[in-house]
Amino acid sequence: MPVPSAADAAPFAIELSDVEAAARRLAGVAVRTPLITSAILDERCGARVFVKAECLQRTGSFKFRGATNAIARIAEGARARGVVASSSGNHAQGVAEAARLASIPATIVMPDDAPAIKRARTERSGATVVACDRERDDREAIAEALAERLGATIVPPYDDPGVMAGQGTVGLEIADELDGLGIVADRVLVPTSGGGLLSGVATVMAGRMPSAICQPAEPEGFDDMSRSLAAGERLDNASRSGSIADALLSRRPGTLTFPIIARHARPGVAVPDEWLLRAVAFAFTELKLSAEPGGAVALAALLSGRLDVAGETVVVVLSGGNVDPGILAQALAMDAPTYPQSMGSGGISVAPS
Amino acid sequence: MPVPSAADAAPFAIELSDVEAAARRLAGVAVRTPLITSAILDERCGARVFVKAECLQRTGSFKFRGATNAIARIAEGARARGVVASSSGNHAQGVAEAARLASIPATIVMPDDAPAIKRARTERSGATVVACDRERDDREAIAEALAERLGATIVPPYDDPGVMAGQGTVGLEIADELDGLGIVADRVLVPTSGGGLLSGVATVMAGRMPSAICQPAEPEGFDDMSRSLAAGERLDNASRSGSIADALLSRRPGTLTFPIIARHARPGVAVPDEWLLRAVAFAFTELKLSAEPGGAVALAALLSGRLDVAGETVVVVLSGGNVDPGILAQALAMDAPTYPQSMGSGGISVAPS
Repeated sequence: MPVPSAADAAPFAIELSDVEAAARRLAGVAVRTPLITSAILDERCGARVFVKAECLQRTGSFKFRGATNAIARIAEGARARGVVASSSGNHAQGVAEAARLASIPATIVMPDDAPAIKRARTERSGATVVACDRERDDREAIAEALAERLGATIVPPYDDPGVMAGQGTVGLEIADELDGLGIVADRVLVPTSGGGLLSGVATVMAGRMPSAICQPAEPEGFDDMSRSLAAGERLDNASRSGSIADALLSRRPGTLTFPIIARHARPGVAVPDEWLLRAVAFAFTELKLSAEPGGAVALAALLSGRLDVAGETVVVVLSGGNVDPGILAQALAMDAPTYPQSMGSGGISVAPS
Repeated sequence: MPVPSAADAAPFAIELSDVEAAARRLAGVAVRTPLITSAILDERCGARVFVKAECLQRTGSFKFRGATNAIARIAEGARARGVVASSSGNHAQGVAEAARLASIPATIVMPDDAPAIKRARTERSGATVVACDRERDDREAIAEALAERLGATIVPPYDDPGVMAGQGTVGLEIADELDGLGIVADRVLVPTSGGGLLSGVATVMAGRMPSAICQPAEPEGFDDMSRSLAAGERLDNASRSGSIADALLSRRPGTLTFPIIARHARPGVAVPDEWLLRAVAFAFTELKLSAEPGGAVALAALLSGRLDVAGETVVVVLSGGNVDPGILAQALAMDAPTYPQSMGSGGISVAPS
């Protein structure tokens, strides 16, 4: 239940203590993902960059955290009837796997253009997948009808205190690890759609590392969060399809996530598909990590130079790694990224004798 | 310099204290790579598996560690004349980048069938690359002639105390992290060619976690280390080409590495190319890590079922991630790996209303 914030009359859906409680529920179940550093990335950005590798999370994205926490909060009597979720893929896998581990059934409504890898991985966790049309169908309404028929509980993709607190554990791990290194982040860039992850991370940073600026990174054409932050009210995207970042195509910021984000975050940056693909290629070639386009949007914001972070300590969340092989091939086939000038070895030139 | 072992009249090239000294030299320069866990991998193997992700190391493989340590040990007066190395790719990159960071020139002799990605990455660190024929040329002899002409120091790929101690820091991090978790490994599987990495890791484990069994994982047809361990003497491979594991094609165990490995390790397992590719695909799809075939050989040993590890706690070193995109595509195009039986969601079957 919402607890009033000490700093504001309006209650927020989650507080730092909710995220800490979620972390206790996730201990030993979710992976504590590493913060990855890369000399090449630092040179490219002129900054000290830490990549929170949530692609290494169970199910390949951070979504497992929120799903596990939300399911743990379902009342005992309702739990056996299972859960229903609506998702383009990563939330689907997170809910399906969290439900499998809780030994309860899961039914997932997925748009029919969801990447094949995400549907296959959702089904292998034992979930029943119900397909719908991304543009034509109201998939939330379909999910609600299903949940009513089954007596099941809906696990929303972002606008839910349990989900938001679970995603916030990403921020808690970032703060813990940087604290351990004696480092304070100047900036935290978070791939954002409905705002579940950003609301959780921003809640943690506000309490634990208040000088760090939290910002959304969004695909171009789907920057509803940044525009909403600038306008001070929730604005819609024009479309729900048309970006390669299939994971980040929500209509608008959430009703629960937005007030928190408006309090604790600043407008961020929008990144075109071309740079999402370059970031996927960079993650594979330089970081040795599998990243999907939406998951790589914060990394892409840095690589594209759309954000000046010179001299800063920056954390980028790499939120998901479920990339279809065809997309990776497309990314790798693009022009090779430009590399920093090497120091060279001088004038040596010898042929084998 | 070799220090006599307390347990043996014959001196070993390195002791645990040499690895600890190397760790101090590498602090803040090399990445402390994470131990990755995966529920899917544990289920597949019926074991608790930790993957030491050295693909996340600078230059994409553990080789940067040994190169950096060896270069740090070069006498001040000789250092400015630079280094020479002979390598199929990962040692090349490691030496080139370590030399760049030390601001000294590097010349690398590479076989002309080395993967394009490895040559390109070696050159971008500023090294001069000299190509030779893998079968016909004696590339060690070429390297020696070059070093003599340049007055440069050779950094051997494995048979060198500085290199071996540097690679051993992989083992030190494994021991430190498992200690922190209160976990004792039953087994440590190490991708092995000349034995630099295995000799270092086995030295550490013997001192820090003596109940852990260290074993080499090798490509089929290139299992000179296991055969040598069984025979009690250094045996040759029949060829130096013909496996997809381009990083693991040394002729025979090293003169310095073998005595240490013979003391501290047991014969391991040989893995055919098909399973190396499956492991590359598994690493990408399930672990979200980029692995090259040779780097994935220990993981492949587990996935192939060639080693029974049921109920054990096993560490596999994923030693390198510099895979050519074509090899990855080939791996992903193979039959999808079989997945563990899911628990299912029971008899739910509902259509959207």
